[in-house]
Amino acid sequence: MLVVKKFGGSSVADSEKIMNVAKRCLEDYEKGHDVVVVLSAMGKTTDKLIAQANEINPHPPKREMDMLLVTGEQISVSLMAMAFHALGVPAVSLNATQLPMVTTSAYGNAKLKRIETERIRHELEARKIVIVTGFQGINKYDDMTTLGRGGSDTTAVALAAVLHAEVCEIYTDVEGVYTADPRIVPNARKLQEVSYDEMLEFASLGAKVLHNRSVEMAKKYGVKMVVRSSMTRAEGTVVKEETKVERMLVSGVAADKNVARISVLGVKNVPGIAFKIFNLLAKNNINVDIIIQSIGREDTKDISFTVAKQDLQDAVELLEKNQEVTTAQDIASEEGVAKLSIIGAGMCSNPGVAAKMFEALYSANVNIKMIATSEIRITVLVAEEDVNRAMRTVHDAFDLAD
Amino acid sequence: MLVVKKFGGSSVADSEKIMNVAKRCLEDYEKGHDVVVVLSAMGKTTDKLIAQANEINPHPPKREMDMLLVTGEQISVSLMAMAFHALGVPAVSLNATQLPMVTTSAYGNAKLKRIETERIRHELEARKIVIVTGFQGINKYDDMTTLGRGGSDTTAVALAAVLHAEVCEIYTDVEGVYTADPRIVPNARKLQEVSYDEMLEFASLGAKVLHNRSVEMAKKYGVKMVVRSSMTRAEGTVVKEETKVERMLVSGVAADKNVARISVLGVKNVPGIAFKIFNLLAKNNINVDIIIQSIGREDTKDISFTVAKQDLQDAVELLEKNQEVTTAQDIASEEGVAKLSIIGAGMCSNPGVAAKMFEALYSANVNIKMIATSEIRITVLVAEEDVNRAMRTVHDAFDLAD
Repeated sequence: MLVVKKFGGSSVADSEKIMNVAKRCLEDYEKGHDVVVVLSAMGKTTDKLIAQANEINPHPPKREMDMLLVTGEQISVSLMAMAFHALGVPAVSLNATQLPMVTTSAYGNAKLKRIETERIRHELEARKIVIVTGFQGINKYDDMTTLGRGGSDTTAVALAAVLHAEVCEIYTDVEGVYTADPRIVPNARKLQEVSYDEMLEFASLGAKVLHNRSVEMAKKYGVKMVVRSSMTRAEGTVVKEETKVERMLVSGVAADKNVARISVLGVKNVPGIAFKIFNLLAKNNINVDIIIQSIGREDTKDISFTVAKQDLQDAVELLEKNQEVTTAQDIASEEGVAKLSIIGAGMCSNPGVAAKMFEALYSANVNIKMIATSEIRITVLVAEEDVNRAMRTVHDAFDLAD
Repeated sequence: MLVVKKFGGSSVADSEKIMNVAKRCLEDYEKGHDVVVVLSAMGKTTDKLIAQANEINPHPPKREMDMLLVTGEQISVSLMAMAFHALGVPAVSLNATQLPMVTTSAYGNAKLKRIETERIRHELEARKIVIVTGFQGINKYDDMTTLGRGGSDTTAVALAAVLHAEVCEIYTDVEGVYTADPRIVPNARKLQEVSYDEMLEFASLGAKVLHNRSVEMAKKYGVKMVVRSSMTRAEGTVVKEETKVERMLVSGVAADKNVARISVLGVKNVPGIAFKIFNLLAKNNINVDIIIQSIGREDTKDISFTVAKQDLQDAVELLEKNQEVTTAQDIASEEGVAKLSIIGAGMCSNPGVAAKMFEALYSANVNIKMIATSEIRITVLVAEEDVNRAMRTVHDAFDLAD
C-alpha cells in the first residue's frame, strides 16, 4: 500500500514540528506501507522571500521569483529527510527537477503536465521514505516554476494519481470538513465524507480547507483524499466520489463575507449587453460571482452581480467610465453583504430544499437580496450583519448539528 | 570579451549590497562585454542552514546537507537577477542543474568534472547577464553536491576556463594580495601581480585571499585571475603564469599562527618508521606540515613536525597510544609557535636568499626552531610571540615596503 501525505507550512514551521511530522509518518512506514511525503515551505518562509525580493525589485520578473521561491520547499524536504535519518529510517528528499515534475511555462501559476515516477519508485523499492517538494515544477526550458495558490495540495494529489496511491492525506490545522464554520456554528459537525463536487463548492465558498485545483485533480483521477489534523489523531474527512446509497440532503453551510454587490441599472434590452459588461470586467481582472438579470421599466433591464470587496471600487469606476458601452442609466453598489450557501449532492433530486432554506431565513427575519443555484448548491446574498445568525438557523433547519 | 566576476557572501549580504554589486557589474556590460557573475550564499546563510540542520540531526546525511545548502546560492542568484532587472538590464540566474555543472559524487566535497556551456552561451548571445550559483554541482544520480571550502572561487575559475574568459575577477574585502599582512606590517605593499605558484604558497600559509583549489585550477587551465575589492576601485592583484623578465626575488612574507610542534623522540633507526608515524596520523585525518628528521643518540633518530593547533591533543594521544608501532621513547610537544615564510618565484635561482632571511632574524634576536624550504618558499618555525616582529624585520630586509 502506498500513501501520500502532505503537510503545510505551519506543520513544519520549526525543528520540533518537523520531528513530529517525521514520527507521525513513521507509523505508516512501520506498518510496511510505502510513504511519500509532500511538503510546503516552513512557516512564513515564502512570505519572507517575497518581501526580500520586493525590497530589491518591486516588480521582480516572475521567472526569477520562482527560482527564488522554490528554495523554500527544498529546505523543508532536506530537513525532513534529516529528521527521518535521526529516527534511524532511510529517507531521501527530491525536488521537481530530480523527478522531474514537468509543468507549463507560466511562471508563478504553472500547471502540471507530467510527473516521472521512476526515481520515486526506485527509492521506494529500497524502502526509503520519499520526501517531495510541493508547489514547484520545471518547464521545458529547464527553469523552475511554481504552481500558484494551493500548489502543494495539487502536487500531493498529482503524485497520488501517478503512483496509484491508496490515499492522499492532506494534513492541516483543522480536523476535517465541517457542516459549517465551528467558530460561528458551535454545534457544527465534522463530515465523515464529502463528494468531490461538494468539496469544490465548499472551497469556492470560503471554507479554505482545500484549494479547488487539488480537488478538481482528485476528481479527474479518482484520488481518494483525506483531510485531517496534523495535531490530533481524529479520523478526518474523506473526499471521494459519491458512493452512499442514501445521499445526505445537505452536507453543510458555508458563508463568504468578502462580497460586495453592484447593480447596473436601466441598460438597453438588446442582445450583447451582458457580454459587453462582463467582458469589460474580465479584461480588467475583476472576477464576478452571482449574476442576476431582471426586467426593468420599459425597454430596459437591470443586471446585478457580486464581486470581491477589494474589487468594488475598481469595478464601479470602470463601469462609470464606460456607460456608453454598457448603455447603463445608473450604477449602484452595496457593501456590507455576505453570501450564504447550502451544499449537498442530494439536493438536485430533492424538491423543496430551496423552500426549506428560505423558510428558515424568513423565520429568522433575514432578508434575501439575491439568489443563485447550481446542481448541488443554493446561495443567497444577505446583509453581512445577518449572516452568522442565518448560518446557525439554516444549519439547524437541515438537522446538521452534532 | 567575456568576464567572470565572483562575489562572496559578505558582498551580497543584504539588498543594498546586492544592488551595489549589480551596478558594478553593469559597467562591464555597458562596455559591450559578456558578463558572467558567480555568487556565494548571502552573508551567514550557510552557517544558519547548518545550525538548523544540526538542531534536527547532529549527524545529518551529507546528501541531504548538500540538498539543503545549495538553496543558499540559489537565493543569491535569483535576487541578483531581480536587481539587474530593476536596473533595466536583462539577466538570468542559473543553478548547477540548469547548466549542468557535473561533479563527482562526494557530497560535501565534490570535485568538478564537466560544465556544459550551451545554456550560458545562449543567454549571453541574447545579451543577458548570466548569474550562476557558486559552490554547487550535480552528480551522476542527479543529486545536488557542494564543492567544500572555497567552492565558489573554484566555480568561477572553472567557468572562466570553459568559457575562455578574458579574466576571472575574484571580489573580496581586501584590495589584493600584499607583501605581508597589512595589519601586522603597516608598510606592506599591494602586489601588482603574483604567479600561480606564489599564490598557492601564500594561500597555504594563512593568507586567506584565495582558496588553493581555485588557484590550482587557474594554473592548470591558464585562467588569469584578479583579486580585488568589492568596496573600492583599486586595481587589485593579477594572478597568472610568471611573465616578468626580471622576477622579484621575494614577493611577500606570510605568517601562520595556527601551529603546534610535535617531536617523536628516540625512534629506531630502521626503514619504515617515518611511514608508520605519518600513516597513523593521516588515517586519523591529522594533517602534518613541516617535517624534520634528525639523528638522535646511538641508533635512534628524532622526527619533528607541525600540526594545526586544534589537532595537537589528538595527535599526541594517538602517538602515545601507539608507541609500540612508532618505537618512540618519548613524545614532546610545543604550542606557542608560528610559521614565518618568505615566498618568491625568483628565489630558486638566487643564492643567498635563505642566508639573508636568517641574518634578519638573527639581528632581531629571533630564534629559529625549524626550517623547511621549497623551490619558491622558505619557512621557519619561531616562537609565536616573536612572529610579528620577525615578519616586519624580514619584510624590511627584502625591501618589500611601499
